[in-house]
Amino acid sequence: MDAERIEQQIAFIVEIDRLKQVLRQTHLIDGKRRENSAEHSWHLAVMAVLLSEYAREELDLARVVKMLLLHDVVEIDAGDTFAYDEAAHADKEERERLAAERIFNLLPADMAREVFALWEEFEAGATPEAKYAEALDRFQPILLNYGSGGIAWREHGISSEQVIARNRHIEAGAPGLWTYVRGLIDRGEDYGYLVSESCSRGRSAPGESAGI
Amino acid sequence: MDAERIEQQIAFIVEIDRLKQVLRQTHLIDGKRRENSAEHSWHLAVMAVLLSEYAREELDLARVVKMLLLHDVVEIDAGDTFAYDEAAHADKEERERLAAERIFNLLPADMAREVFALWEEFEAGATPEAKYAEALDRFQPILLNYGSGGIAWREHGISSEQVIARNRHIEAGAPGLWTYVRGLIDRGEDYGYLVSESCSRGRSAPGESAGI
Repeated sequence: MDAERIEQQIAFIVEIDRLKQVLRQTHLIDGKRRENSAEHSWHLAVMAVLLSEYAREELDLARVVKMLLLHDVVEIDAGDTFAYDEAAHADKEERERLAAERIFNLLPADMAREVFALWEEFEAGATPEAKYAEALDRFQPILLNYGSGGIAWREHGISSEQVIARNRHIEAGAPGLWTYVRGLIDRGEDYGYLVSESCSRGRSAPGESAGI
Repeated sequence: MDAERIEQQIAFIVEIDRLKQVLRQTHLIDGKRRENSAEHSWHLAVMAVLLSEYAREELDLARVVKMLLLHDVVEIDAGDTFAYDEAAHADKEERERLAAERIFNLLPADMAREVFALWEEFEAGATPEAKYAEALDRFQPILLNYGSGGIAWREHGISSEQVIARNRHIEAGAPGLWTYVRGLIDRGEDYGYLVSESCSRGRSAPGESAGI
């Protein structure tokens, strides 16, 4: 066994423990606390396995899963950037590239190169694997937001138009999931979880009494 | 698109969000809070990818990753059973089987069968994939316990002999990792993170002044 090699691998594994402390804007479905990026990555990897029949193109599912397990590790240094925060997106790329260089290079050189390439592939969003992975990365917070009664959407006054504009490319990776999401957005607007820019319908949410 | 099928898949994905609330005895490496089973599963899946060169036998890595992503979902109903709690282990199998039946059957029947088989394979620990997956499932808490200054070990007065007895079969799945773990246990005993049944050496821990 190569002692230096295993120490480098373990150093990376120890370092990424910190992803469990990076909080996202999304709340867990029970609404009790915000989700962290490690458990988010787990949820996405499970979804990749269970929903692969909805991917638009033939793909290497094992590569999708690796990509999703590692895609957010850069947030240890760069933080999570809320999907609807336009200002924070301006320097997101630079912050995340610096993070990738520091964190992935904890690994032995051959593995660092492989993980870096996988992360770049995800960010570029051009391959069937990256498109499907990105579709899931957008779909999951919508599912959690909807399930939690729209906590993060209401907190930030997000409209259904914003959700559609921001997430439309789910369709490029997984058309069937986009159809499903459109249904959630419509219901989210009906229940008042999402603001509508064109009108405000405001039906009562499930479990709430009507007319309040 | 089959509307009933996708609703069943989503029902499962929504249900497993609750795994993020199941707390383990292990603390995060920074010691600030206990780890939950969802982020633990994420950590294991990453480790499976990065440490596959230490697996004893040739194996299907994608199956290992799926197994690790889903192996703890039963804890949503059955709770986490601390590795050193002999009493709780008595009815663990029965509690977890009932949980598996309820939770996996939220999925469409074909997927429920597949996930159930994968979980049974992990529990039986007979295939190369299950042995490697179990080795990681034992290795990861040792790494976190050691890294956090032995918080959970000290809290429960765990001895190095207990850690060795409980985790020895890491060697069956990943001999190189067992060698590494033996080194951690020795240092853990030196630093006083672990009780020694045969003697008490008690050297100072890194960062602590000697002689206290």
